[in-house]
Amino acid sequence: MQTRYDVIVVGAGHAGCEAAHAAARLGCRTLLLTIDLDKLAHMSCNPSIGGPAKGHLVREIDALGGLMGRITDRSAIQIRLLNESKGPAVQSLRAQCDKRLYARLMKETLERVPNLDLRQAMVERIAPPNADTQCFTVTTHTGWRYLAPAVILTTGTFLRGRAITGEAMWGAGRAGEAPAMALSEDLAALGFPLVRLKTGTPPRLAAATIDFSLTELQPGSDTPLSFGHYYPELGETIPPPEYHGPPAPVYPHPQLDGWRPQLPCYQVHTTPEFHAIIRENLHRAPLFSGIIEGVGPRYCPSIEDKIVRFADKERHGLFLEPEGWTTSEVYVQGCNTSLPEDVQWAMLRSIPALRNVELMRIGYAIEYDAVATGEITADMQTRRLRGLFFAGQINGTTGYEEAAAQGLMAGINAAHYVQGKPPVILGRAEAYIGVLIDDLTTKEIREPYRMFTSRAEYRLLLRGDNADLRLTPLAYRLGLVDGERAAVVEARRQQTEHALQQMRERRIFPSAAVNASLEAHGIKPISQPVTVAEVLARPEVRYTQLRDALPDLPALSDAVIEQVEIGCKYSGYIARQEREVARMQKMEHRRIPPDFDYTSLPGLRNEARQVLMRFRPATLGQAGRLAGINPADVAIILFALERRQGDQVAR
Amino acid sequence: MQTRYDVIVVGAGHAGCEAAHAAARLGCRTLLLTIDLDKLAHMSCNPSIGGPAKGHLVREIDALGGLMGRITDRSAIQIRLLNESKGPAVQSLRAQCDKRLYARLMKETLERVPNLDLRQAMVERIAPPNADTQCFTVTTHTGWRYLAPAVILTTGTFLRGRAITGEAMWGAGRAGEAPAMALSEDLAALGFPLVRLKTGTPPRLAAATIDFSLTELQPGSDTPLSFGHYYPELGETIPPPEYHGPPAPVYPHPQLDGWRPQLPCYQVHTTPEFHAIIRENLHRAPLFSGIIEGVGPRYCPSIEDKIVRFADKERHGLFLEPEGWTTSEVYVQGCNTSLPEDVQWAMLRSIPALRNVELMRIGYAIEYDAVATGEITADMQTRRLRGLFFAGQINGTTGYEEAAAQGLMAGINAAHYVQGKPPVILGRAEAYIGVLIDDLTTKEIREPYRMFTSRAEYRLLLRGDNADLRLTPLAYRLGLVDGERAAVVEARRQQTEHALQQMRERRIFPSAAVNASLEAHGIKPISQPVTVAEVLARPEVRYTQLRDALPDLPALSDAVIEQVEIGCKYSGYIARQEREVARMQKMEHRRIPPDFDYTSLPGLRNEARQVLMRFRPATLGQAGRLAGINPADVAIILFALERRQGDQVAR
Repeated sequence: MQTRYDVIVVGAGHAGCEAAHAAARLGCRTLLLTIDLDKLAHMSCNPSIGGPAKGHLVREIDALGGLMGRITDRSAIQIRLLNESKGPAVQSLRAQCDKRLYARLMKETLERVPNLDLRQAMVERIAPPNADTQCFTVTTHTGWRYLAPAVILTTGTFLRGRAITGEAMWGAGRAGEAPAMALSEDLAALGFPLVRLKTGTPPRLAAATIDFSLTELQPGSDTPLSFGHYYPELGETIPPPEYHGPPAPVYPHPQLDGWRPQLPCYQVHTTPEFHAIIRENLHRAPLFSGIIEGVGPRYCPSIEDKIVRFADKERHGLFLEPEGWTTSEVYVQGCNTSLPEDVQWAMLRSIPALRNVELMRIGYAIEYDAVATGEITADMQTRRLRGLFFAGQINGTTGYEEAAAQGLMAGINAAHYVQGKPPVILGRAEAYIGVLIDDLTTKEIREPYRMFTSRAEYRLLLRGDNADLRLTPLAYRLGLVDGERAAVVEARRQQTEHALQQMRERRIFPSAAVNASLEAHGIKPISQPVTVAEVLARPEVRYTQLRDALPDLPALSDAVIEQVEIGCKYSGYIARQEREVARMQKMEHRRIPPDFDYTSLPGLRNEARQVLMRFRPATLGQAGRLAGINPADVAIILFALERRQGDQVAR
Repeated sequence: MQTRYDVIVVGAGHAGCEAAHAAARLGCRTLLLTIDLDKLAHMSCNPSIGGPAKGHLVREIDALGGLMGRITDRSAIQIRLLNESKGPAVQSLRAQCDKRLYARLMKETLERVPNLDLRQAMVERIAPPNADTQCFTVTTHTGWRYLAPAVILTTGTFLRGRAITGEAMWGAGRAGEAPAMALSEDLAALGFPLVRLKTGTPPRLAAATIDFSLTELQPGSDTPLSFGHYYPELGETIPPPEYHGPPAPVYPHPQLDGWRPQLPCYQVHTTPEFHAIIRENLHRAPLFSGIIEGVGPRYCPSIEDKIVRFADKERHGLFLEPEGWTTSEVYVQGCNTSLPEDVQWAMLRSIPALRNVELMRIGYAIEYDAVATGEITADMQTRRLRGLFFAGQINGTTGYEEAAAQGLMAGINAAHYVQGKPPVILGRAEAYIGVLIDDLTTKEIREPYRMFTSRAEYRLLLRGDNADLRLTPLAYRLGLVDGERAAVVEARRQQTEHALQQMRERRIFPSAAVNASLEAHGIKPISQPVTVAEVLARPEVRYTQLRDALPDLPALSDAVIEQVEIGCKYSGYIARQEREVARMQKMEHRRIPPDFDYTSLPGLRNEARQVLMRFRPATLGQAGRLAGINPADVAIILFALERRQGDQVAR
C-alpha cells in the first residue's frame, strides 16, 4: 500500500491536473488528491479556454508537454482566433468547450499516466517535514496520512470557501460542494499570511427559453485552428472533437459541415431597463453592501461592478455560450453577478431575446482564502517551507489558464526539487508563463491576477504561433516531450532561419519581366532593387503569391511560411525587442547581494526602500519589476552596486 | 418569473428524475430542484441497473412511459439476462452502465421535456399549504421561495447525511458532497417520525493495477436485450449504446463485434487471508463498534457483515465492474464496506488479481434520515399533509430501481392530485411496482427495503417479458405513452390471445406423416391425439420448430411467439395464479369500515390487533398483507365482517 510519494498534489482543478501530470511525467511517484473525483478538471465557471493572452498561455503549456491545449481541442464546440485583423502579438485563440467532455477527457488522460495515482480524499491537515522522514505529512478527512518530500497545494476556491447571492451566504467550495475549512487553519499556523479574495460566476440559462432569433451569431472559425501543436511531419493532425450525434436541437445555425463540427455562440446586449434594474438594487448587491469582504478581479468584473464603474456606457455585450454539444445549459459570458436572485431574473428578462428566459443556476460570488504575495519564489516554492509549492488561485490568480500554467511549473519544479535538480524558471522574454510567475513573485497582488498581453514587455516575441519554437527545446531537455517532436521543432526553426536569411539576401531588380510577373500575381511592382524580405514586409503580400511570381523561391511548409512572413513583416519591431531583451538580460543578471543594505542608500524613496527590503530581489532585473519601484530607484541601486564593486576592487 | 408551479420535485436522483418527468408529461408545470445540476441522475453506488426483480421494475417503468430503461439501454456497457436457464418469472435483465453517460443522457432528456424546469438549489425549508395560496412553500438556501399545491420529496441519502469510514465520520450527502441538514428539522417539526438508515458503497479500483488474467470473464449477452420496449411495428430498434471510440485499453476481451459493443465484467473471489484480515479488524468496524446507528440493508450487506453472518462460507464472489467505456475506475460489486482505510487496502490486496491494486476511492457507509413506515398511502402521498409526496430512500427503500419506480408513481399521483383526478394505484397482481408500494404502505420497514421476486405472490404473471402487456394500456389511458405504442401493444395482446386460442383448439393426430414431419424437425413424435398447445408445452419445443413441422400453423412475430410459448409451457401455473388473483381480488376489495372495532374481536391476537389499529387497512386484502397478520387473523376479521353485514341486513 502506497502512502509515501515523491510528490503529492492537493486539488484536481486545472492547476492540480497539470502539476500531477508534469511531476509524474518527470518520473516522480505522484499522488493527486481531490475531494470529488467526479469533479476532476471541472470547469466551474465558463467552459471556455483561451482568449487574449490566456490563449498564449495554453499554447505554451502545450509546447511544454502539458495537457490543457490537447484536451481543449478534443472537447471544443467552437474555436476562434481573436484579433485576427490585428498584429500577430495580440492574436489569441479562444475555444468554447463541452464542459462534461473536457472533464471526462482530462480524467481519463490522467488515469492512464504512469507513476500517477488519483485518489478521492479531502485534505485537512498539512505538517512540515519531520526530521525522520524528511517528508511532509498530508492528512485526509479520514485521518489517513500520506508522506512526500514535495507537496503542491492547488486549492482553488475551496479554502474556507463561502458562496454569496444577494443576502444569502453559505459555505461552499463551489455551489453544491463542500468547502475545505481545516486546511486554512494549518496554513495560517505555519505562518502563511492569508488574504480573502473573491470571484464570481454568471447565471446559466435554459436554451429552450431563449429567443435566438434576437441574438447575433458568433460562429467558430472557418479554418483549422488548435491549441495543441500537431506536426504533419509526424503524421499528426488536429484531433476531431469528440462529437457524436446531433447537437441539442435548440441551437440554431450549428456549423456541421466545416473543417470540423462547431456550434456558434450568440450575442445579446444589455438594455437601459437592465441598467436601471441593477442601479435600483445596488443597495442589495453584496459587492456594495459590505457582505463581500474579498477583493474581486478588476478585469473580470461582475455586471453590477461594470454598471457602476462605467456609468456612462449605454450597453454591454453579453454572450450566450452553450455549455456543451447536447446540454441545454447556456453560460452568460459577461454577466458575473452576486445580485439577489429576483434581480438576476428581472435584469436578464429585460433583454428582448431573454424575455421568457428560465435560469437553471443563479449567479453567485465566492470568497476564498489565498496566500498573500511574497510567499512563493519563481519556482513556485514557498519561502517558508522548502518542498511546499502553491499553484493557481491560492497564489491570487484567476483563470483556468493561469492556474494550469502555474500547475505545470509547480509540477516540474517539485519533481526537480525531489530529484535534486535545479529549478526551472522561465524568463519574461521566453514565455507568458514567465511573465505570469515573475509578476506573482515580484508584484503585490491586491486582486485576482489575470494575464493580459499588455503585461508582457516583449509580446512580439511571445506569440501564440511560436510557442513551440520558444519552449519545446526546453521541454525536450526536461523530458516533457519526446525527441521526435523536438526534432521537428528544431527542423522548423532551422528552416525558418535559413529561409529568412535567403529572403534577406536575395535581391530582385525592377526589370520589366520581374514587375510583370509580380503584377500578374497581384503584387505592386518595384521601382528599385529590393530584397525579397522587403517585398514580403509589405502588409498585403503573402509568400505564396510571391513564390508564384518568383518561382525560384524555395518551397516552404505552411508552418515555416507563417514564421517567415511574421519575421519579414515585423522585422523592425522584433529586432528592437530582441535588443531590449539583450540589454535587460545584462541588467537582469546583475546580482544584488542578499545582505545589501538599502537603509543607507542615499536618495532612495521611503516606499521603494520598504518594497526592496520586503522582497529582497536577487537581481537588478527583479528589483526593477517590483511594484512601486521606478527606473530612478533602479539607477540608485545600480550606482551603489558599482561603487560597492569599486570599493571591493580597491580593497 | 415562475415561482409558482403545479408540482415541485426536491432532489434529482433516480426517484426525482422519474417523478419530474411523469408530472410534466401529465401536463403539470413542474420544477425539479437539485443541490448540484452536474450530479443529476448520478449513480452514487454501482453504475448498474436491473438484477433480480429490479430488472422487472425497470421494464415496468418503461412500459409506463418512464425513462430509466431507455437511458440504461443507451448508456449500457453490457447487458445480460440473469437466470436464463430458469423459468421466465425469475429471469431478470441487468445492465452495467457508463456512469457519466447515464447522468448526461438523463439530464439532457429532462432538459428537453416541456413543462419542466430544472434548477440548482438546496431546499432548506418546507411549509404546509397556507390558507391563501393552498400551496406548500419550499424555501431554498438563498431564501428563495417556490409555491406549489404538490411537492415530492426525494432526498436520497442527503437528509442529515453522515459518511463513515473506520473511525472517521463526516457530514456528507454523498462522499464529496454537502448534506441537507435543515430540511430534516422541518420534517420532524411537521410531525414526521424520522428513522436513521444506513447504506454503503465499496471501494473503486484503478484498472491499470488489476491483474485481469487472474479473473473470470463475465461477458455481456450475445443476443439483443433491452430494458426499453421498442416496437419493430413502429420502425423502432434497440438504440445503440452511445459508444464512440475504443474502450479504455486496460479492459481485456472487450466484445466489440457483437450485436452491439460491450465490455465484460470480471469475477474474483475473497481469500482465507481476506476473511482473516476482516475478522482481526472487526473491533474497528463502525458497523460493530457502535459508531453506525442506522440500520443497513440486510440483502445488500457490507462485506464485513457477510463474513460475520456467513462465518462458515469459505469465499465470496466479488465482481470487478468498469464504471464506463473509457474510465479506469472499477467498482467492486459485493464489497460494500466501512472498514478503516488500511483494512480496505489490505483485504483487497489479499486477492491474487489485486495484489498491487490501487484504490481510487475508499468504501464508506452513509447514514441518513428516512421517514418511518406508515406515513404514506398507496398513492405515495403522506397521510399527514395531503399534497406532500415521498419517493425513494426517504421511504426506507434502497436501490435506483426501487427509487425510480416510486418516483414515477409519485409523479403520476402528484399530477392527479393537482388535477383533481383519482389516485393511480397498481395492484400486487399488476406489477412489481404494485408489490413494492403495497409493501411500503402495509409493512413495517425496519431496514432499507429491496425488491425480490420472492416478494411477489404472482410472479409468473409479473414477468419482465410482459411488462408492456400489463401496463402500457394504463399508461396510454393516463397519457404517459402515445396511441401508436398502445395500439401496437393491444395488437400484440390480441394476436397472442388469438394464437393461444388456435393452439389450444388445433388438434393433431399421430399419423405417420405428422410424426415424420415432427421428427424431421427435432420434435419427438406423438402417440395420441394432442393439441398444438400440448406439444408446445414440452420444455424443449420451440414454436419455430413446430411451425416448420406443421407449416399451416400461423406466422407469428417474435414478440407473440415469446408470449405464446410461455403461455403454453406454463399454462397450468399461470391459470392457478390467475385463479388466486381472482379469489384474492374478491377479498382484496372486501372493504373494512374505517370505524371497524378491532378491540372487541374475539380470538384476535394482541399483536395483530395493534398492527391493525395502527395501519387501519381499507380492505381485507390490505389487512392480510400487513406484517404480523396471518391467515387466521384474516379469517377472524372476515367472520366479523360477515356477521356485521348479517346484522345490518337483519336490521
